[in-house]
Amino acid sequence: MLYQMKNPHGGDVYDSEIRLDFSANTNPFGTPESIKEAIRSALDQVHQYPDPFCRELVSAISQHEQLPPEYILCGNGAADLIYAFCEAIRPRRALELAPTFHEYALALKRVGCAIERFTLRKTMDFALTEDFLEELRIVSPDVVFLCNPNNPTGRTIEPELLKRILDFCAKQKIYLFVDECFLDLTDGEHSLKPYLESYTQLVILKAFTKSFGIAGIRLGYCLSGNNILLGRMSQASQPWNVSVLAQKAGVAALKEMPFLQTTKELVTRERQWLTKELEALGFWVCPGEANFLLFMAGQDIHTGLKTKGIAIRNCDNYYGLGAGWYRTAVRTHADNLALIAAMKEVLEKA
Amino acid sequence: MLYQMKNPHGGDVYDSEIRLDFSANTNPFGTPESIKEAIRSALDQVHQYPDPFCRELVSAISQHEQLPPEYILCGNGAADLIYAFCEAIRPRRALELAPTFHEYALALKRVGCAIERFTLRKTMDFALTEDFLEELRIVSPDVVFLCNPNNPTGRTIEPELLKRILDFCAKQKIYLFVDECFLDLTDGEHSLKPYLESYTQLVILKAFTKSFGIAGIRLGYCLSGNNILLGRMSQASQPWNVSVLAQKAGVAALKEMPFLQTTKELVTRERQWLTKELEALGFWVCPGEANFLLFMAGQDIHTGLKTKGIAIRNCDNYYGLGAGWYRTAVRTHADNLALIAAMKEVLEKA
Repeated sequence: MLYQMKNPHGGDVYDSEIRLDFSANTNPFGTPESIKEAIRSALDQVHQYPDPFCRELVSAISQHEQLPPEYILCGNGAADLIYAFCEAIRPRRALELAPTFHEYALALKRVGCAIERFTLRKTMDFALTEDFLEELRIVSPDVVFLCNPNNPTGRTIEPELLKRILDFCAKQKIYLFVDECFLDLTDGEHSLKPYLESYTQLVILKAFTKSFGIAGIRLGYCLSGNNILLGRMSQASQPWNVSVLAQKAGVAALKEMPFLQTTKELVTRERQWLTKELEALGFWVCPGEANFLLFMAGQDIHTGLKTKGIAIRNCDNYYGLGAGWYRTAVRTHADNLALIAAMKEVLEKA
Repeated sequence: MLYQMKNPHGGDVYDSEIRLDFSANTNPFGTPESIKEAIRSALDQVHQYPDPFCRELVSAISQHEQLPPEYILCGNGAADLIYAFCEAIRPRRALELAPTFHEYALALKRVGCAIERFTLRKTMDFALTEDFLEELRIVSPDVVFLCNPNNPTGRTIEPELLKRILDFCAKQKIYLFVDECFLDLTDGEHSLKPYLESYTQLVILKAFTKSFGIAGIRLGYCLSGNNILLGRMSQASQPWNVSVLAQKAGVAALKEMPFLQTTKELVTRERQWLTKELEALGFWVCPGEANFLLFMAGQDIHTGLKTKGIAIRNCDNYYGLGAGWYRTAVRTHADNLALIAAMKEVLEKA
C-alpha cells in the first residue's frame, strides 16, 4: 500500500512468516488467562461507548500505585499519552537521549518543537552520565524526555543523578517526562513516583502493554501531581480513546502482580544467560537491566534470522546507532535457545 | 476527578444508573454474536502489537467497498481519523454546519483553524439549502465538513445539491470531508463513494461503531482517492492506533450485512412510530432519516428521565440549538415504548 509510512518500530509480525518475535519487548509468558477472561466477560458491554473517564480503571490504578485518582490519566497505549503531553505543553525546545524510543521525537515534531539530543556513548556502556546536567544547562529546554530503563539500551539511570536532574528541572520550571514503561520488568528499579507530589513539573509514563502481555490491546497511563497539565492532556486526547475491553483488561491486569514477579525472575535469569551466549558469538552486549538487550553484531544478522522465521529489532534507524546494531527481547529459555541456535546457523553461513 | 473536561457527547452510561441509553446512536440489537466470537478467537494474539497497517482488515474493507486498498485508512474510531485529517491538512479556515457533530470543531481548533458555520434552520426542517453554495463562495474555506445524514438532525443532503457542492470544492481545490458514519442505517442513502476516483479533494468517513454495535471497541475508516493525503493522515496517527481486537472485529462485522439490513428495517419502522409518539406529546420532531431523532421539547425532560434510568442526548451544547432540544436514538419497539412511557410520566409530574 503506497501511502503507508515505514513502521519505525519492532513487533510487526504481520508482513512475513515470523514464528518467534524478539523484536517487541513484551512479556515472554504472553497474556495471563485472567485478562483474557476479563475481556470475554466484557463482550456484553462493547455495544456501549467506553467510559471516557475510565473511572473503574483509574480507581484500580489509584489503589495499585497508592496515588490519588487525580494523579492518573489513561490513554490508548503509551504512545497516545506521549502525543497528548506534547500537544498539551507545545514545547519549543526539547532535550532527549540518543539512542532512545522514537515516539518522543515524532510527537515533538508534530507540534513543531526543536529537538536537541544528548548522545550516549558505547565507551560508557550507554550509561547516562553527569555530563547530561551540563548539557541541560546549556540547552535550557522546555522539556526533557528520559526513558528509564532506556530503550533500546536497557540501562537505568543512576538514582542520585536522576534526582539531580529532577531538582534542576524543578528549579528551572522544565517539564521532566520520564518513561518508566519497562521499569516493572527491570532489576533494581527506582521509580520517580515518590516525587510526584512535590514536583509538579514531573510526568511519569507507564504501560500495561509490555508487562502484562497485552500489546495488542493498547493501554497506558501517566502519573502527575500537576492537575492542570493532566486536564490539558485529557482535552488533547480523543473522547473515547481507551476501549471498553482495554479498560477491563487493565483492571484485571492489576490483580496479576505475582505473574509480574515471576516474569521478572525469568527475565533476570535469562538476560544473564543471553548476554553470555551473545558475547560468545563475538558480539558486544550492552549491560542492560531490562527485558531486552542491545548488542552490536557488526554485520547483518536480521535478514538471515528472518528467513528462519525469527524477528529481532534492527537498530539502524536509531539516532546514535547504525547498521549492525540490534535489540533482542529476553524471552523464555526455550525461545532464547532457539534464537541463539538460529544465530549460530546464520553466522556459519555468512 | 478535577482534571476531567465535561464529555460533550452522549453515551456516557458510567456516571449513573442508566438502564436504557438513548443518548448514543448505536445499533439497537447490540453486538452480533459473530463479532464477539471473532474477539474471543483473537485473544491468543493480544500479546502481540497490532498490525500497524491493518492489512487483513483493509483487504476486507476493500472487498466490501469495492475500492482499492490504497483508498482506505483505518483509525481508532471515527474521531481518530477526524483528528488525523485536520493534522494532515492543517487548514486555516473551515466551514461546517450548525448544528453538527462536535468533533470537527474540536479537531480544527487543535490545529488553530478558524471555523465558520452555516446555520441550519428549524423553519427549513434543518435541511441543507442552496444558500450553502453562496456561503461557500463567500467564506472560501480550505476545507468543508459535511455530515450526511447530519448529526443531530438526521437529515440527509439532497444528492443534486451535494454534487454541486462537490463540484465547487473540486474546482476551488477545497477539501470536502463528508462524514457518512450513520449512512448505513439511513433511508434513501446516497453515498459520495462513486466520486472518490475523480475527486481527489474528497474524503469520506465511515465507522463500524454505530452500525455494528461495537462502540466500545473503537474502529472507523476513511476513504479517499488521494493517496498523498492518506499517507499524511497515516503519519499523523499513532503507530498502533487500531487494536488487535478491533481489527478482528471489523473483519467479522463486514460479514454481517444481513444484520445491518434487518437493523435498517427496524429503524425505519420505529423511527416513524417514535416520531408520531413524540409529536403526540406536543414536541416538534425534525423529519430525520437516520437511526436517531432530533426534537424540541421546549422544557427540561432529561433530568426526569435520568431519575428513571433513561438517558437521552441533551442538545443544549450544540451551536444552533439550545435548552429544550434533545436527540434520541431509535431503538427496539420495547425500548421505544419504555422511553415514551417514561416521558409521559415526566411530563405529568412537571
